[in-house]
Amino acid sequence: MRPIYLDNNATTRVDPEVVQAMLPFFTDHFGNPSSMHGFGASVGTAVKEARRQVQVLTGAEYDHEIVFTSGGTESDNAAILSALEVMPHRTEIVTSAVEHPAVLTLCAHLEKTRGVKVHRIPVDRQGRLDLDAYRAALTPHVAIVSIMWANNETGTIFPVVELAELAKEVGALFHTDAVQAAGKLPMDLKSTAIDMLSLSGHKLHGPKGIGALYVRRGVRFRSLIKGGHQERDRRAGTENTPGIVGFGKAAELALNFMDDENTRVKALRDRLEKGLLQRIPNVFVTGDTLERLPNTANITFAYIEGEGMLLLLNREGIACSSGSACSSGSLEPSHVLRAMNIPYTAARGAIRFSFSRDNGKEDVDRVLEVMPGIVEKLRALSPFGAGGEVPKNCDPV
Amino acid sequence: MRPIYLDNNATTRVDPEVVQAMLPFFTDHFGNPSSMHGFGASVGTAVKEARRQVQVLTGAEYDHEIVFTSGGTESDNAAILSALEVMPHRTEIVTSAVEHPAVLTLCAHLEKTRGVKVHRIPVDRQGRLDLDAYRAALTPHVAIVSIMWANNETGTIFPVVELAELAKEVGALFHTDAVQAAGKLPMDLKSTAIDMLSLSGHKLHGPKGIGALYVRRGVRFRSLIKGGHQERDRRAGTENTPGIVGFGKAAELALNFMDDENTRVKALRDRLEKGLLQRIPNVFVTGDTLERLPNTANITFAYIEGEGMLLLLNREGIACSSGSACSSGSLEPSHVLRAMNIPYTAARGAIRFSFSRDNGKEDVDRVLEVMPGIVEKLRALSPFGAGGEVPKNCDPV
Repeated sequence: MRPIYLDNNATTRVDPEVVQAMLPFFTDHFGNPSSMHGFGASVGTAVKEARRQVQVLTGAEYDHEIVFTSGGTESDNAAILSALEVMPHRTEIVTSAVEHPAVLTLCAHLEKTRGVKVHRIPVDRQGRLDLDAYRAALTPHVAIVSIMWANNETGTIFPVVELAELAKEVGALFHTDAVQAAGKLPMDLKSTAIDMLSLSGHKLHGPKGIGALYVRRGVRFRSLIKGGHQERDRRAGTENTPGIVGFGKAAELALNFMDDENTRVKALRDRLEKGLLQRIPNVFVTGDTLERLPNTANITFAYIEGEGMLLLLNREGIACSSGSACSSGSLEPSHVLRAMNIPYTAARGAIRFSFSRDNGKEDVDRVLEVMPGIVEKLRALSPFGAGGEVPKNCDPV
Repeated sequence: MRPIYLDNNATTRVDPEVVQAMLPFFTDHFGNPSSMHGFGASVGTAVKEARRQVQVLTGAEYDHEIVFTSGGTESDNAAILSALEVMPHRTEIVTSAVEHPAVLTLCAHLEKTRGVKVHRIPVDRQGRLDLDAYRAALTPHVAIVSIMWANNETGTIFPVVELAELAKEVGALFHTDAVQAAGKLPMDLKSTAIDMLSLSGHKLHGPKGIGALYVRRGVRFRSLIKGGHQERDRRAGTENTPGIVGFGKAAELALNFMDDENTRVKALRDRLEKGLLQRIPNVFVTGDTLERLPNTANITFAYIEGEGMLLLLNREGIACSSGSACSSGSLEPSHVLRAMNIPYTAARGAIRFSFSRDNGKEDVDRVLEVMPGIVEKLRALSPFGAGGEVPKNCDPV
């Protein structure tokens, strides 16, 4: 049976066209783009084209606003640390309680080691940002706001264009981690007040190990990684040219597939949600169902644990994620679900199904076929389940 | 005519075996190694194997001492910044005047912004480190020593094993940028006092965008890039699994080819040097010809400029580097040649030929065939040349 991959918010399959675009840069055009000889010249042209492709995806005004990095995490770190460096008189950061660890871990570190004050704006039960709290946190002490365009776990979309305007009013820089939004939502950075934006190749069917940071022209910037003069002194280190070329191609393809993402892929996601809710009792959709990525379904199955479902789904050849703290191996609900105040027993039973253009209707139908049996089986075994008693401190949805 | 690539210290051609090893990880085994599902499991095994391959190349005692990064520059930055963070009471750095910009640019930045005192140990006319100055700089104020294993421009090898012992005596950490040495010189880290060591994939026929930092077990370390728990909390960000697998394969191959490097490749380099010195007057070898990488020849052609030679060599399909500041586009001699006190007119006429296992005798013979004509032509045009007058302030070698 063909394995079914529904974990596309974690990472995606590299598009074979992307691999084809990369291949010549390993063994034929392998020179450094800055070299004076023929082995470098063709590479410089290809890097330029990739930069343009990423520019087009994001709607940036200039291609040189795109700085290639090793990925989304590096881009997030670089943006925040640069802001603190270019505005040393401002010592506060505004972020959300549901950011990716690439932002939150760095913020916690800066809080602890540099006395930076971090405002973590809360979200409601649907994962929507508390706009009053956001406005209240914005003062002239804030160096940078870093709020994601769309959440990786629930798909909830934040109104970053408006949030950036508000940040501008107090002179703060506005950064957004757009690794989940890019390729799924239209972007026109030149018409916004967004100063910096993080992208990741492997979230949009490009290669791992490559990403970008958009830095609006005129925004002062200090590189995180120092050394040679690559990327106009904004990111040192020999350019990862196959990665850059692959990322460029992936950006071009993502733009081509954006309609598919918002029609066919969205319909697959909706079909799955509707089907699960119809077939299984005590199942709930988490996140903002109005403002949400078209490919993401975060679904809680009350009374059972996500890990059990993952394991049984895996036996059926179906890959997805649980709502637990992803890279820690912990079974505790993730910081995102905790911030949303999802009740404990529900949050522990959260599963994220994230689709991509590689998926088809047969994938949804297969999940709908096996899921009721899996849930029934686990609930029968669960102390919280049908046969068990719900502990008093565990408040079902 | 087949192009001839003699710029292997800049970057190398990815070995086709390396590309083959990487390919399945783009489109088949594309999951994250930390995922709980089947798409991740096989990837975790492959990453583990790559870590072991790099361990074997370096002679590290434990595989978990290898931390994968995005390349040599990131590794250098991470090592130095970590040392300052774990030893906040020590505020000095010892390095050499001929380090790669990945070390020197960061040091200059730390000097300027954090008041760190940087000791740049000078070198002599052969590029050898001034050991008295080194010993004098070592005090209990030093957090970290960062001295390269071998110089990228001249190939001069530094006695890092001894230097590390001396650093240990004052309680400083010892880091070495070994991106040029790895795969060319035998390494047995477990028998040394080296605490951290930087590696780069693309310098040894692996892919660009991947490198590693060796961090000896027990050495306290703070990650440069913060976020998820990848690489045992020492380098956040989704693992670049194709890059890691490719780097591992490249490390394995480099070990297999180390004999070839030190016999056949070395003989090619020596044949080139001898041939040029025989055929062209006023040609000199720079660097320490006794302690030198087997693949590197840095040769100065008095009275002319490296760039002119590069252009004419490029027309003949021969790729190499000049001795000018590599990534700046400047025609001034590099900081390495300046630190060696190579006279100005000679340093401006420096060319680096760097070989690899991809080269053969025919490549050397072709350079020897065309080079006398190129030099003669340029010298005839040069104000410093045969027909011109040597300015008084330009002291030929």
